[in-house]
Amino acid sequence: MKKKLFLLAGTAILLCSTAMAGEGGHWTYSGNEGPEHWGDLAPEFVMCKKGMNQSPVDLTGMIKAELSPLQVSYQPTTLDVVNNGHTIKADSSSASTITLNNHTYKLIQVHFHTPSENHIHGQSFPMEAHFVHADETGNLAVIGLMYKEGEANTSLAPIWDNMPATVGNTEKPSGMILDTKAMLPAKRDYYRFNGSLTTPPCSEGVLWLVLKEPVSASKEQIEKFHAMFHHDTNRPVQPLNARVVLE
Amino acid sequence: MKKKLFLLAGTAILLCSTAMAGEGGHWTYSGNEGPEHWGDLAPEFVMCKKGMNQSPVDLTGMIKAELSPLQVSYQPTTLDVVNNGHTIKADSSSASTITLNNHTYKLIQVHFHTPSENHIHGQSFPMEAHFVHADETGNLAVIGLMYKEGEANTSLAPIWDNMPATVGNTEKPSGMILDTKAMLPAKRDYYRFNGSLTTPPCSEGVLWLVLKEPVSASKEQIEKFHAMFHHDTNRPVQPLNARVVLE
Repeated sequence: MKKKLFLLAGTAILLCSTAMAGEGGHWTYSGNEGPEHWGDLAPEFVMCKKGMNQSPVDLTGMIKAELSPLQVSYQPTTLDVVNNGHTIKADSSSASTITLNNHTYKLIQVHFHTPSENHIHGQSFPMEAHFVHADETGNLAVIGLMYKEGEANTSLAPIWDNMPATVGNTEKPSGMILDTKAMLPAKRDYYRFNGSLTTPPCSEGVLWLVLKEPVSASKEQIEKFHAMFHHDTNRPVQPLNARVVLE
Repeated sequence: MKKKLFLLAGTAILLCSTAMAGEGGHWTYSGNEGPEHWGDLAPEFVMCKKGMNQSPVDLTGMIKAELSPLQVSYQPTTLDVVNNGHTIKADSSSASTITLNNHTYKLIQVHFHTPSENHIHGQSFPMEAHFVHADETGNLAVIGLMYKEGEANTSLAPIWDNMPATVGNTEKPSGMILDTKAMLPAKRDYYRFNGSLTTPPCSEGVLWLVLKEPVSASKEQIEKFHAMFHHDTNRPVQPLNARVVLE
């Protein structure tokens, strides 16, 4: 039963990814199908313009709170790198999970944005990774990880060495694994807020955990990702409205 | 400019109240136009079924946080008691405000529900008052106050003695004032969460502050309100989803 539900969650994400690839409604990061028009491109994108709890946000005015430690139990996964036309994502086939307040979410995929989508105290970062998780009923939890420019990041190599240049293509290099745990910083302190998908359909009810500690990536690594799409891949920050960011 | 914006906010609430009176889409608290159907009764009610951040909620799993004190600056107001078919509300004509984290909201109106809409740790109360406020751009903040059965509450008398029995009617007893400050408990400790209007159109982005300390109302007072509508006037609690309740 558990496995079945996790598969269902995986299917939901897959459908979502399909929509991202343009088979639902076509959308882009600029121009007539850019972020300010997403809500008008398809009826199912309505939350992109009507939602009052949208992502990304500028994380500011944090309220100090007794947040539970984030327990990460990531396992190495076989490699499956997809170019969906909007980002490069690596699907997770392993039993990797996070647990927060006794609630467990399974890692589905990790993808990237250049520059970062969330800001912290008004500051943008050159790149952000999103580790997307789902619980047994499909509720999503996303870990946002910031990259600053510096040393080359070896944990990215399995993905960076296998990015498909063609939209819709998937690379599955045999014998190669992705160590998602090695991608995370040692310290797992986080900011918590309640938001949405950052791409159409902009669905809400997503639990966001942005790690306080950034990790490094080289200028070349960041530029290689950015060059795949020839443009920025970040939605502008959205108003917090009645939300607060906890730390 | 400030006054103009407050008037705009007031107009928004007025429009909202008009919709509540059934001139937008008709809705009820049970049957074919009851809460489980609200989202299908009119296109503008879509958030009632699609929203992931709806009110009321069962306040549970609170996270301890460094919440700022709630500053209440209420002034006595001339009395204007409306029966809009769903509740009895008293409009505020005075310059009453609340301030939270240096952000000020003006009191627009106070209305009631029997039994309570929000629950606290699974517990329902026999009555709940909602003090509805708006900031200069129309963002809403609502104080929820719970009533337990006990001593008669004299601060309610100006409203309770002037409730119009006929839907759509307004009582404006001359020379009578409502002391909204006297309605609040001495202690202003609160639970904070992010929610919505509890009636169609169920708009989100509403800041909710539920006071921890209940006040008392007599059995007769609670029954008099309930008898005005011959039925309960509470929307069932909605899922928290990715939200947390702060205390």
